[in-house]
Amino acid sequence: MEVCTIGGFNEVGKNMTAVKVGEDVFIFDAGLYIPGIVELQEENLLQYTDRLKKGKRFENTYTEKKLREFGAIPNDTVLDKLGWRKNVRAAFISHAHLDHVGGVPYIMKRYPEVPIYGTPFTIKVLEAILEGEKIKINNPLKIVQPDSFQFIEGKSGKYKVDFVHTTHSTIQCVFVALHTKEGIFFYGLDLKFDNYPTIGKPPNYKKLKELGRAGVKVLVTDALYSQTEKKPGGEVIAKHMLEDSFSKLRGKNSAFFATTFSSHIERLINIVNLAKKTGREIVFIGRSLSKYVEAASKVNFWPHKNKVRLIKYGKQREAFLRKLERERGKYFVVCTGHQAEENSVMDRIVKGSTPFKFREGDHLIFSSSVIPAPVNVVLRDKLDAKLRRIGVRLQTDIHVHGHGSREDIRDLIRMLNPKHVIPAHGTLQQEAPMIDLASEMGYNFGETSHLSSNGKVLKL
Amino acid sequence: MEVCTIGGFNEVGKNMTAVKVGEDVFIFDAGLYIPGIVELQEENLLQYTDRLKKGKRFENTYTEKKLREFGAIPNDTVLDKLGWRKNVRAAFISHAHLDHVGGVPYIMKRYPEVPIYGTPFTIKVLEAILEGEKIKINNPLKIVQPDSFQFIEGKSGKYKVDFVHTTHSTIQCVFVALHTKEGIFFYGLDLKFDNYPTIGKPPNYKKLKELGRAGVKVLVTDALYSQTEKKPGGEVIAKHMLEDSFSKLRGKNSAFFATTFSSHIERLINIVNLAKKTGREIVFIGRSLSKYVEAASKVNFWPHKNKVRLIKYGKQREAFLRKLERERGKYFVVCTGHQAEENSVMDRIVKGSTPFKFREGDHLIFSSSVIPAPVNVVLRDKLDAKLRRIGVRLQTDIHVHGHGSREDIRDLIRMLNPKHVIPAHGTLQQEAPMIDLASEMGYNFGETSHLSSNGKVLKL
Amino acid sequence: MEVCTIGGFNEVGKNMTAVKVGEDVFIFDAGLYIPGIVELQEENLLQYTDRLKKGKRFENTYTEKKLREFGAIPNDTVLDKLGWRKNVRAAFISHAHLDHVGGVPYIMKRYPEVPIYGTPFTIKVLEAILEGEKIKINNPLKIVQPDSFQFIEGKSGKYKVDFVHTTHSTIQCVFVALHTKEGIFFYGLDLKFDNYPTIGKPPNYKKLKELGRAGVKVLVTDALYSQTEKKPGGEVIAKHMLEDSFSKLRGKNSAFFATTFSSHIERLINIVNLAKKTGREIVFIGRSLSKYVEAASKVNFWPHKNKVRLIKYGKQREAFLRKLERERGKYFVVCTGHQAEENSVMDRIVKGSTPFKFREGDHLIFSSSVIPAPVNVVLRDKLDAKLRRIGVRLQTDIHVHGHGSREDIRDLIRMLNPKHVIPAHGTLQQEAPMIDLASEMGYNFGETSHLSSNGKVLKL
Amino acid sequence: MEVCTIGGFNEVGKNMTAVKVGEDVFIFDAGLYIPGIVELQEENLLQYTDRLKKGKRFENTYTEKKLREFGAIPNDTVLDKLGWRKNVRAAFISHAHLDHVGGVPYIMKRYPEVPIYGTPFTIKVLEAILEGEKIKINNPLKIVQPDSFQFIEGKSGKYKVDFVHTTHSTIQCVFVALHTKEGIFFYGLDLKFDNYPTIGKPPNYKKLKELGRAGVKVLVTDALYSQTEKKPGGEVIAKHMLEDSFSKLRGKNSAFFATTFSSHIERLINIVNLAKKTGREIVFIGRSLSKYVEAASKVNFWPHKNKVRLIKYGKQREAFLRKLERERGKYFVVCTGHQAEENSVMDRIVKGSTPFKFREGDHLIFSSSVIPAPVNVVLRDKLDAKLRRIGVRLQTDIHVHGHGSREDIRDLIRMLNPKHVIPAHGTLQQEAPMIDLASEMGYNFGETSHLSSNGKVLKL
Repeated sequence: MEVCTIGGFNEVGKNMTAVKVGEDVFIFDAGLYIPGIVELQEENLLQYTDRLKKGKRFENTYTEKKLREFGAIPNDTVLDKLGWRKNVRAAFISHAHLDHVGGVPYIMKRYPEVPIYGTPFTIKVLEAILEGEKIKINNPLKIVQPDSFQFIEGKSGKYKVDFVHTTHSTIQCVFVALHTKEGIFFYGLDLKFDNYPTIGKPPNYKKLKELGRAGVKVLVTDALYSQTEKKPGGEVIAKHMLEDSFSKLRGKNSAFFATTFSSHIERLINIVNLAKKTGREIVFIGRSLSKYVEAASKVNFWPHKNKVRLIKYGKQREAFLRKLERERGKYFVVCTGHQAEENSVMDRIVKGSTPFKFREGDHLIFSSSVIPAPVNVVLRDKLDAKLRRIGVRLQTDIHVHGHGSREDIRDLIRMLNPKHVIPAHGTLQQEAPMIDLASEMGYNFGETSHLSSNGKVLKL
Repeated sequence: MEVCTIGGFNEVGKNMTAVKVGEDVFIFDAGLYIPGIVELQEENLLQYTDRLKKGKRFENTYTEKKLREFGAIPNDTVLDKLGWRKNVRAAFISHAHLDHVGGVPYIMKRYPEVPIYGTPFTIKVLEAILEGEKIKINNPLKIVQPDSFQFIEGKSGKYKVDFVHTTHSTIQCVFVALHTKEGIFFYGLDLKFDNYPTIGKPPNYKKLKELGRAGVKVLVTDALYSQTEKKPGGEVIAKHMLEDSFSKLRGKNSAFFATTFSSHIERLINIVNLAKKTGREIVFIGRSLSKYVEAASKVNFWPHKNKVRLIKYGKQREAFLRKLERERGKYFVVCTGHQAEENSVMDRIVKGSTPFKFREGDHLIFSSSVIPAPVNVVLRDKLDAKLRRIGVRLQTDIHVHGHGSREDIRDLIRMLNPKHVIPAHGTLQQEAPMIDLASEMGYNFGETSHLSSNGKVLKL
Repeated sequence: MEVCTIGGFNEVGKNMTAVKVGEDVFIFDAGLYIPGIVELQEENLLQYTDRLKKGKRFENTYTEKKLREFGAIPNDTVLDKLGWRKNVRAAFISHAHLDHVGGVPYIMKRYPEVPIYGTPFTIKVLEAILEGEKIKINNPLKIVQPDSFQFIEGKSGKYKVDFVHTTHSTIQCVFVALHTKEGIFFYGLDLKFDNYPTIGKPPNYKKLKELGRAGVKVLVTDALYSQTEKKPGGEVIAKHMLEDSFSKLRGKNSAFFATTFSSHIERLINIVNLAKKTGREIVFIGRSLSKYVEAASKVNFWPHKNKVRLIKYGKQREAFLRKLERERGKYFVVCTGHQAEENSVMDRIVKGSTPFKFREGDHLIFSSSVIPAPVNVVLRDKLDAKLRRIGVRLQTDIHVHGHGSREDIRDLIRMLNPKHVIPAHGTLQQEAPMIDLASEMGYNFGETSHLSSNGKVLKL
Repeated sequence: MEVCTIGGFNEVGKNMTAVKVGEDVFIFDAGLYIPGIVELQEENLLQYTDRLKKGKRFENTYTEKKLREFGAIPNDTVLDKLGWRKNVRAAFISHAHLDHVGGVPYIMKRYPEVPIYGTPFTIKVLEAILEGEKIKINNPLKIVQPDSFQFIEGKSGKYKVDFVHTTHSTIQCVFVALHTKEGIFFYGLDLKFDNYPTIGKPPNYKKLKELGRAGVKVLVTDALYSQTEKKPGGEVIAKHMLEDSFSKLRGKNSAFFATTFSSHIERLINIVNLAKKTGREIVFIGRSLSKYVEAASKVNFWPHKNKVRLIKYGKQREAFLRKLERERGKYFVVCTGHQAEENSVMDRIVKGSTPFKFREGDHLIFSSSVIPAPVNVVLRDKLDAKLRRIGVRLQTDIHVHGHGSREDIRDLIRMLNPKHVIPAHGTLQQEAPMIDLASEMGYNFGETSHLSSNGKVLKL
């Protein structure tokens, strides 16, 4: 078995791994590296201002070439060099986050006949991304249910593939277990073991143990928090934090806002449940919110279908915000911009470019943490400072994150009992603690536990 | 009104404040400074080894003089200098934590006729401390219910005193509101506003607002987390964290241990509720655990009276641990030592001086955080490392702390609307952010918001 | 004596203090708050883009009103409220940094007849600022030598004022000691006690002790590093660090760049001394570099007058950079942009908008630290990452900063032995450690040591 | 070529590497892991108290077995398993620090005929350690000069070995370059490239480049600060920091103390040079100080031979400290205990168990940093607090450390241009940044750059 660790092994982002067994190759995930995207946007912006000065029009386009140049998508051209490209039989997308699915439109074009497998929600999100970016791909999109399996025909045999339900921070996340003659290749990211989720079921531990008994050869898994002892806590904790935050909202004529990750359907459901108790009309504003909520709707994972108004486009948004300015006590707004991203709804409002302006006594709940990159810290610092100066009552960090810490990884390894362990989803430094954990559990570094990097092949 | 900030204004600990109105003086709290105690113990230990070497006996005694020398109790001799001492009419103890009540045995001797007011639990804990230290005081101990009031006769009038229920991290905590002709003096520490406590009621906001309308002149309150935006979360969150931890216990013949703050009755109740589901017999070991649980029992705050065995003394402990060693799957043990304190039960076990030894596969839940002083960090680092080397499965930081952050303080100030604000419970640096918060709310530093230090008098 | 702490007591920046003795008021410093300026620039930039889109012109102007709105200059209107404004007899500028002199053009207009005292360099820099901003003020500019004194006639008497030489991180810095009937008011910021400066003399300790013996009533001084035990080190250390950096430059055809604080004349002299040994022509590019170097030249503090070419204006700069691109081995360039400030020379080059582009093997020495505000961290992170990607060899942090730590302040207090101590140059939290230091030395907080905040008056 | 990374690849300490070429094996370093030693001491201490209580005697002995159990020496038994043990031809000790030479007494007994090569100072220190621990080894001790070479006869050929002078933080440090048929194996730890040392010469760059041209196959080097951009600075900087500290000493009758690393001969020389100017008699107290200074003397590296009194034994020490107590203005004392180590001279004095006691106005210079392990932080915190309470004037952190940062490692790699790079001297997390650095320079992780761990073999 050969494992090519294509992306996400030198950074957090653009996850992609390929596995070769006999003459058959399988791809797992094809994500984006968001800081690369941001850098590319900035370059585009510079050109934009330049062109504006010269009186020209500007079109912001991401080309595959530009994305590769900025390291924003995985460098899968390594598969060409290895001669694996023509042998790819299937691609599996673990879940709907951009660092796992966002590269598909650019990458999978190069493998036009290869089917792409994902859960209903993941595939719906992928379709929405393709539509949004105006890209067409010819790959067959195959919908698989969590906790189901598929058989895939290869040159060197027929492969059973299990899609095992896990919890994380969006819905319908799966681990992918590829059964081969040499044993199971287990693609185990991302994960947080939540035994008391507020919607859906806990991870399928029974299946994991069963696979462990059947014989796992290789485990690739999520090392992001492998250094951390403290557990992040399950979603029920976020729910209680929200409950407490909502109990502090006051003012009949004050605006009430919340903002969170658009893909975090479970969180959004809990927010809506609490918002309903305020008696106000609930309005979601922002393109990405609509994208994810609509996808959830289509797969029957959105219980608030007719109770939440979704606003997507600029005109609708301006009209609504004008109304909100006059009747601020009538609505409960959930919008994009928890990281103060440029051009998010929150950013636009605070910069003063919308008809609605925050006032003293308005409330804003950040159901998110600041992603600890300096750029986010700066943007949120500024945003928060402006809001406080106005007198907006902020509640921040009403959030638990979605990556399991040391003990979750220990549990996963125990249940699967794999022969080889490969940490993923981080830099070498972030992956190293998982090697230490594996040592505690009897693995030998370089023999049965491995640090890899983007583009490297491990023969196991 | 004159406020003498006696202790807890230059450190976290030994809280004590006195207020003079007309010819009447009132004392609020008389706590210990734990690092001072530790330093004193260490000196005692040095002498102990010395005496042992010389073949002598040793007695570890805390004298008032030694405690003052090591800064372990508030320096209330300032009251002598101010001529206030003879005018003290009453002392109020806000809650049962050592940094609020622990100095009483040494301090209140100097005011032998002054009655000491506290809630039932606080008074029971005080009695247990007095018994434990073999100290007698003659002061009348007056039991007051949370959300009740008392009238106290002074030279310059009759004073109504409200004892307002609040939530924190032990039971029966109260704010003390002293009604004077000049307005209310409000002693507001410690606090965390928990709107969904797992036992008991939320803070009495109604009363707080009522007092606010009646006119608060001075608010002294808990600045410890005034710099922190992020809320600690309520006890329900700790409960869910525990639930998750308990779901990870496994092994019919493995020992199960938990350790937490002995005074945290609410936490202990939740631990017992979960431990009962394991079907094992529940045993508490450690002197301070017994002290607090017995006090809670006496005031009917301990629902597990006949379901938990309390082990207090050395012989009993050794006998039980011998049994546990043989039948480790039969018991669920809660013991002292979450900070790896010298001579705590956990410390003794791990150092190998008890008949019970930890083995691979045993479980230990730390329902506490490491107090971020280097000494605790070192002790816990060593303890944890030893346990891990053995293969004990640790779950750490299953905890939320008990001090409100910025938004709780903002709420308190809003409800009480005091004329003057005085941050307490910290160093100058820890108190400074509350001055900034007060500025945001319209207070002027040096006029209506004040930084004080130990021994200073503010005339307001 | 009344001390009004106008600016720099709630932030690092816009330093300004006023003192009233009898009927006479004296002003010390009138600086800028740089983050306020940056925020204002950003707002201007937004308007700029908007106007550009609409095809309009834009003019970036700082008005006094705007500067006050953004908190960029001290709020001296408090002097109007106090009725002090008309009694101002003189203003003293301690040194040439923008947070001490930068507000003069906007503030001192309001006191048109009040003379402004400063050392030759400080006054030259002030003149350059006035010219740069195209502002005229009518105040008489009075040049005083370090270690000289002046007599100033007031309503309530005649005042001797000592200007005492100190070391910091620009040249001709002075402490200002105002002799009054009540004792000396000593304005002691900024400072770092450098006993082995590479140019000029150590601080005038003799005079400080003499003043101490004469009787200092009030000391206002620089608390910025009062929490820090570790000394920053003198300029000789920066010189040795530079020496080491220069020894690593290689490549006959590689570009050599250095960047540092424009006002740091001592540093610039040392850089030039080392750069001369490379045999290359030395060129300084950037407006602020020229401003400070020309001011130093005028006061005979610039020994490299004909050995360094100064480039100030855009056209000259473009022409030179075109030449540099072809003959990169011929020049040693010092330029602005050590914090990656927008539109600095470094920023323009790295963004690709100049004829010169960095290449692999070029060298760049940052003789500065990143100012630890998120905005600087982000900008420098990006800049450094781009440069590294190209292969430019960076040497960063070749720097020692200019503020004395705990022991320097202790020395100052010892020598002056003031009755009252007031920390300045920081937030309350940054000033608090100086209160602790003063406590160690026998001062009582609230009696002889004082925390103030912007706009407050202390009567001493 | 096979490289067995025996110790120092999972921790900072107990460095040891072995290389096999054909049938010949060579050992590089055999150090101690100090935290393991401390843990062992603590266990010994527990037994000591136990035995004391029982009235028994106690002997503190380190056995090889105990040292292995506590991970205090490298686990070289891996060489037995590999069948390499009997093929060892020589051992090379790079320098005189305990984490490189301290394991020799326990390890090299197992290879009784293998000669041990070291520079004169290193061998003298080794001899002193052997004498101190009362251990005899039969291995021939071979003295080699820095910048010399040796030929060593093996089974598979004759090997030239270069001992290349480098700078670090003790004297006579060398890199060891083993010339083999497959190319050079270069053992490059520890190092800091100091181009302006205050004694001795800069590193032998000429030789390094020469070896680079001759063909280096493998480089093992010091990754400890590979993540750090900022350079530590050369010893000249420490010298200037000391100069400044000494300029602050005052008080004719005050005691003057300094403390630093005993092995840091260059530092000690600079301290003595400055101390001489105080006109006081200079006295060194402490066993390890004597050990290193005597070793330096023997190899003519101690210019202060008759100017410094060395005090080694308890009685002498007590007698001297009694005299010092009476005539504190007569002496300048350098002693052990900069980390507040238990039983160091400083620790004894501060704990009050010597005839000399510190008083207000005494001076103490720490020419060291606190090693950032919690245990050191705690001990120094306590020590410093006690000293400050007394009123001793402390100057701390008068120090630059001895490990090169990123740019030094980059230079080393550039000069040697090795085929393979292996980071050492750290945990995986500390070594990982050197892999990133190597990537920047064209190395491929897993192919030409390698992360190893204790006991692993790399076949290159």
